[in-house]
Amino acid sequence: MPESSEYAVGGAGRAGAATAMDTVAGLMRDISDVGADARRGGYSRPVFSSAESELRSWFTEQAERRGLDVHTDGNGIIWAWWDTATGTRRDAVVTGSHLDSVPGGGEYDGPLGVASALVAVDLLKTRGFRPRRPLAIAVFPEEEGSRFGVACLGSRLLTGALDPNKARNLKDADGNTYADVAAKNGQDPRLIGADHKNLGRLGVFVELHVEQGRGLADLGQPVAIGSSILGHGRWKLSVHGQGNHAGTTLMKDRRDPMIAAAKIMIGIRDTAAKYRDARATVGRLQPVPGGTNVIASRVDMWIDVRHPRDEVTAALVESIHLNAQVMAAEENCTVTFGVESLSPTVHFDAGLRDQLQAMLPKSPVLDTGAGHDAGVLASHIPTAMLFVRNPTGISHSPEELVEDADAEAGAAALADALAGLLGAARALGSELQAPPMMA
Amino acid sequence: MPESSEYAVGGAGRAGAATAMDTVAGLMRDISDVGADARRGGYSRPVFSSAESELRSWFTEQAERRGLDVHTDGNGIIWAWWDTATGTRRDAVVTGSHLDSVPGGGEYDGPLGVASALVAVDLLKTRGFRPRRPLAIAVFPEEEGSRFGVACLGSRLLTGALDPNKARNLKDADGNTYADVAAKNGQDPRLIGADHKNLGRLGVFVELHVEQGRGLADLGQPVAIGSSILGHGRWKLSVHGQGNHAGTTLMKDRRDPMIAAAKIMIGIRDTAAKYRDARATVGRLQPVPGGTNVIASRVDMWIDVRHPRDEVTAALVESIHLNAQVMAAEENCTVTFGVESLSPTVHFDAGLRDQLQAMLPKSPVLDTGAGHDAGVLASHIPTAMLFVRNPTGISHSPEELVEDADAEAGAAALADALAGLLGAARALGSELQAPPMMA
Repeated sequence: MPESSEYAVGGAGRAGAATAMDTVAGLMRDISDVGADARRGGYSRPVFSSAESELRSWFTEQAERRGLDVHTDGNGIIWAWWDTATGTRRDAVVTGSHLDSVPGGGEYDGPLGVASALVAVDLLKTRGFRPRRPLAIAVFPEEEGSRFGVACLGSRLLTGALDPNKARNLKDADGNTYADVAAKNGQDPRLIGADHKNLGRLGVFVELHVEQGRGLADLGQPVAIGSSILGHGRWKLSVHGQGNHAGTTLMKDRRDPMIAAAKIMIGIRDTAAKYRDARATVGRLQPVPGGTNVIASRVDMWIDVRHPRDEVTAALVESIHLNAQVMAAEENCTVTFGVESLSPTVHFDAGLRDQLQAMLPKSPVLDTGAGHDAGVLASHIPTAMLFVRNPTGISHSPEELVEDADAEAGAAALADALAGLLGAARALGSELQAPPMMA
Repeated sequence: MPESSEYAVGGAGRAGAATAMDTVAGLMRDISDVGADARRGGYSRPVFSSAESELRSWFTEQAERRGLDVHTDGNGIIWAWWDTATGTRRDAVVTGSHLDSVPGGGEYDGPLGVASALVAVDLLKTRGFRPRRPLAIAVFPEEEGSRFGVACLGSRLLTGALDPNKARNLKDADGNTYADVAAKNGQDPRLIGADHKNLGRLGVFVELHVEQGRGLADLGQPVAIGSSILGHGRWKLSVHGQGNHAGTTLMKDRRDPMIAAAKIMIGIRDTAAKYRDARATVGRLQPVPGGTNVIASRVDMWIDVRHPRDEVTAALVESIHLNAQVMAAEENCTVTFGVESLSPTVHFDAGLRDQLQAMLPKSPVLDTGAGHDAGVLASHIPTAMLFVRNPTGISHSPEELVEDADAEAGAAALADALAGLLGAARALGSELQAPPMMA
């Protein structure tokens, strides 16, 4: 954040603020031990893990310290409300993100948006800002889908995009159902599903997130406005062969699904490379039973496919499936194949984007290949995203990075955006002259 | 077991036996719930798991019921002694096997040899047999190497083939060291290592094991005598790339170790296929971090390689390593490579084999591609194996099978062999006329 900003972050507040404010970097440091993964590097904070629970408690405490009214709904979404004087909860401006991570993920993916929301509230309060519309910070569970396989699980349940019966039966890698794990963690799994009451309160959603590519790094800007999310889906492909002893089974007698899986993976890459702008990835693969001296009986692999045009995604997946059948047959194996989740390309609300561009004139507009809860909510309410610069351009990896100054610039930009949306744009606008927050 | 056998198994003993005897099938049924793996099928009984501990307790109880003197040594090997009248423990005849399993392994691999040893003792006792040499049943831990990566861990420690410092630092898939896991399970890890006292007591070792190929099924015989164990080893190969986001990273910008690993696996198969009698397998593979929406940063794979001629194994592994480097470089990845265990081809003691052939004249002589504790002990004492027919020929899989009658025939053949070796061959021989036990 430039020194010339009117929002003094991390030092004494402007006249009227009694105490030193939290910084985004300071809040991130508070949680920098939680879920650190010594084996993989980075962080592993799957939904319902002790690490994720600890982060949820941390958020609750931070929100309550700020006088927000915190409660968790039936879908496990935490809502922290800053109500108007009349206590209304309609047409709310909502920000927030998620606290779960991929295995061995980066520090900022999710928590940056949550910490920035808290600091944005501080910035607004420090200025004596009184919202005309209610503000809420939302924390969505299982955004990554790392545990139960369906990304944006919380927001999909909230909006009714995911059948609660299907959700209850989702299984983690240990074979535990969502329903069982939720119940063991104090969440009643009977209460999940479309929540019209909470959804009906929301007027607009703005999610701040670390950028997951090099767009801002290349443009030399700390904050961008999101335009769209690439359509994407996950498919599970299982290759079925014949489990047997690695020492006693002759090479010619084998029906080894690992060899078929290897050919299929190369085929997936080669197929994706033929489609411009397509991405296809096998990042998770499990041989069953998985012993060194055992020819696998089955190999499970998960395929992540993305393309801006949904019909191209469909054609690409069809081609992958067909190719997999051929490759498996070559090894006397068979395949089973099914979709686990599918999200069409999301274009964020154009009017909201124009408003944000007016508030944050130096911020470029970028699309993203990564999925977000904002993409799910976009079918229901005007939704926008802010991205904060990631100098490495690397994501879902310990090498993901946000510089402290950029993190503060992001929170300041979010505060600007929220202030504008909360209906005090003009009043605040006079205080928010150039240089803009994240210039 | 043929009805004409003099060893009545599973019914009333011959004159002099007071109670009904256990059968091998009955003992196997006793433990048929322990470690059953609903997800993989078959059994998962890794060393130090609750399932393996339960089996060890079961064995101890069974051995003590038979009046054997049971103790566990510093390496976790259980010894159950049937001493001579003078209480000597020298020049002992030892039988036994293991109770651990590969993940999702068969029911008989290991436990069949243990249960058969117990029944063989019953058979000898029922006949009023008094050994001139002591007899011991040994249960060796971590024969499969499924948890800490080194097969025949117990026998390798006993004989000094494995440095105890290296063993203490071996890690399981969760990163726990052998030393830590052993200590948590009541075994003092400082006590592991070469055990000359116990090793010095052993005169000969005979291990009964389910056959892991189709040799006996094709020959129409229930029991075979082992001639040799194929040389084999395990190597760990890691492919290092660049972890990144599956949605935001363009195909052309990737350094995906999964693609390199796929090429390497196909190369391993194709290389092994060029060498007659060679087997090379990748049955265990782990992408790190292993998330669906994450390009892996590293892929770990374990390669099991076997060939009767050790110099061919070495050449094959060298070729695999070289090929892996080339394949990894094509994907801008690198590899690290190292041996985890290596066992030369073992030819069992020819004199002992001839003795067994004289005792079991209808049993064919077969070699095996599978490793066994008998192969480790063979460098120190005369060692033999008996194999029991597996009609599916499938091993390290839930489809492994032993018919009940063959299991009893195996125990009877083992009793014959032990009786002969215990120095009463002539006395017992008069009772052990044709038809032989497992005809």
